[in-house]
Amino acid sequence: MHLVTPPLSGERFQVIYRIQGDYEDAMVKAQDACIEQTVEFPSDLLPSGDIPDHIIGRITDVSESRNGSHDITISYPVEGAGIDLVQLLNVIFGNTSIKPGIRVEKLILPPVILNTFRGPRFGRIGLRELLKAPTRPMLCSAIKPMGLTSEQLAEQAFQFTSGGIDIIKDDHGLADQPFSPFRERVERCAEAVQRANSKNGSNSIYMPSLGARADQIFEKAHFAKSVGAGGFLVPPGLVGFDTMRALADDDTLALPIMMHPSMIGSYVTCPTTGFSHYSLFGQLTRLAGADATIYPNWGGRFAFSREECISIAEGSQDDMGQIKPIFPTPGGGMTIDRIPEMLEVYGKDLIFLMGGGLHRIKPTLVESSAYFRNLVENM
Amino acid sequence: MHLVTPPLSGERFQVIYRIQGDYEDAMVKAQDACIEQTVEFPSDLLPSGDIPDHIIGRITDVSESRNGSHDITISYPVEGAGIDLVQLLNVIFGNTSIKPGIRVEKLILPPVILNTFRGPRFGRIGLRELLKAPTRPMLCSAIKPMGLTSEQLAEQAFQFTSGGIDIIKDDHGLADQPFSPFRERVERCAEAVQRANSKNGSNSIYMPSLGARADQIFEKAHFAKSVGAGGFLVPPGLVGFDTMRALADDDTLALPIMMHPSMIGSYVTCPTTGFSHYSLFGQLTRLAGADATIYPNWGGRFAFSREECISIAEGSQDDMGQIKPIFPTPGGGMTIDRIPEMLEVYGKDLIFLMGGGLHRIKPTLVESSAYFRNLVENM
Repeated sequence: MHLVTPPLSGERFQVIYRIQGDYEDAMVKAQDACIEQTVEFPSDLLPSGDIPDHIIGRITDVSESRNGSHDITISYPVEGAGIDLVQLLNVIFGNTSIKPGIRVEKLILPPVILNTFRGPRFGRIGLRELLKAPTRPMLCSAIKPMGLTSEQLAEQAFQFTSGGIDIIKDDHGLADQPFSPFRERVERCAEAVQRANSKNGSNSIYMPSLGARADQIFEKAHFAKSVGAGGFLVPPGLVGFDTMRALADDDTLALPIMMHPSMIGSYVTCPTTGFSHYSLFGQLTRLAGADATIYPNWGGRFAFSREECISIAEGSQDDMGQIKPIFPTPGGGMTIDRIPEMLEVYGKDLIFLMGGGLHRIKPTLVESSAYFRNLVENM
Repeated sequence: MHLVTPPLSGERFQVIYRIQGDYEDAMVKAQDACIEQTVEFPSDLLPSGDIPDHIIGRITDVSESRNGSHDITISYPVEGAGIDLVQLLNVIFGNTSIKPGIRVEKLILPPVILNTFRGPRFGRIGLRELLKAPTRPMLCSAIKPMGLTSEQLAEQAFQFTSGGIDIIKDDHGLADQPFSPFRERVERCAEAVQRANSKNGSNSIYMPSLGARADQIFEKAHFAKSVGAGGFLVPPGLVGFDTMRALADDDTLALPIMMHPSMIGSYVTCPTTGFSHYSLFGQLTRLAGADATIYPNWGGRFAFSREECISIAEGSQDDMGQIKPIFPTPGGGMTIDRIPEMLEVYGKDLIFLMGGGLHRIKPTLVESSAYFRNLVENM
């Protein structure tokens, strides 16, 4: 009889999968995931003992869900996930991502796993303290479009700050292009935001985009901090969820992070594969250390439903032990007239993200930003 | 009139998207991608000049495709992609990944981009030289299951090598778990493969899995090389495509890389979003430096079709300038009886990947491996 050494703790974490098909079909797919996500080995050839008894996944709950699909909960041993985010994701959905008709709906993580992660360094309370905005909704906009010079983008950053935007981020499409090279742009924009802060007594921060090469991303982050950047925009779909986690965990950086959804869309746009909005934009984004989760609000340029957006807001704050709640940051075609509806749905714990829309409210960006800020504060 | 500085070269790359819907619907989605993937800004507010004329995407071809969808080609300025893989992916599919009904079918990259990437360091010719297998198909298997000790896994590696398996890889589920910690396992398995090579005069290599933390992955790769690992198994869905690229580009590592598809499945399992098999498992995997691309063969445990698998083989070898062809490595439930059919479809430029199936052919792994090798060599 084969026993695992060192002995298993017996602690397990759970994943709720939404599986297409009737009860029998869904159970076959779930039993398959129990193997595929762990030993990836023919069951009849496993040595008896701990491996079949404890290492492979175990179905712990089955319930019928919408459109004839089934929600099936599988538990896995904590040790299999090796207590890091990469291997946790690997066990949650690695090979099963390649099979049709199964989607990660929700993670149920015990304290032994949650305590291994720092999660968001700031979270809602920390970011509010940093931005000196104890209760009101906060505002974010992006410098853009791609093709402008660093000087022109810095001028936008100055105007946004002067008008009262709290977080001025790079458009996620700004990388290290010749028209606004990373170091030049970051230096100028950080300076512009600080200059406007000094002038107006404001506390805005500039977040450059870290959609950068794996061998340059930490160096770029440190450079950005050294010239006064106040946080980072990180696209985990491009650089990896654990790279975002490592940036958040780095005590020599210690700046807030906003998650940008570039390239992770395919995990949610197809309802029968990938992840639920709740688990991807909420749970995983928090586990990976972001302090705010950007996603397209319903009714804008993208196709997320109102219900999906609400589930993201829930995932951003539902209990995850010591992992802090973070800010839902709906954007993607937002306009001024959406503010009342959004406040009603999300409450005040949110960051409004308005990009292009902010350029057509008033003659200047300062005036548009001030108008936006005033509306939000007085509603 | 706003001109971009420095001036644009005029060179563009192209992406063929498969877009759901009739001509009018598809064109609306394509026009939308032209903006979304570049300036992400209302067209009517763009400054006149280079930005609307050259920075935004441009539709260059439209043709009707299967099931009433349309293949629409969009060109983007080379400068927008900033000449690195992260930003190239960002322009190809960043925000558009969040929209339903549009999928990346094929990339058409000009020499100015292709020449910026090293691509696979070894490619087909280099890997054949390394493994001293000039013309025959090659064999790969995986040490498993999760839960065995490093010693037991190393014994498997020894037996695989003794039987003639060319590449012995970690099962992708082996990470840094307490039952076979990374350093201990890698040291023992590399030693076992080298010992069997010395005994039998073979040239097999051991490839540990680098499903590792962002802040540890390079350190683990260097450790693995220092104890005799002969290559790396890299899961870009977990660690990022550009991390794989950086590992491949590192001249102090200079070892072959196999791409493992953990967590990238959702990009291909839904036919109306994500990437085609050709572009993801072929083009992008090559651009990101892998020498072999692992995917589930049709008819195994997964659901890829024969046609999709053939498209991967095409993507692994179609002309990409100086970017080398790589080995299709079909696996995912392969058995001995599939060999003739696979040779007929793929030819001899492939790596057969058999994992669990290899454990039930003969009484020992040495005999099973030798039987497998003999079959493949004499067919």
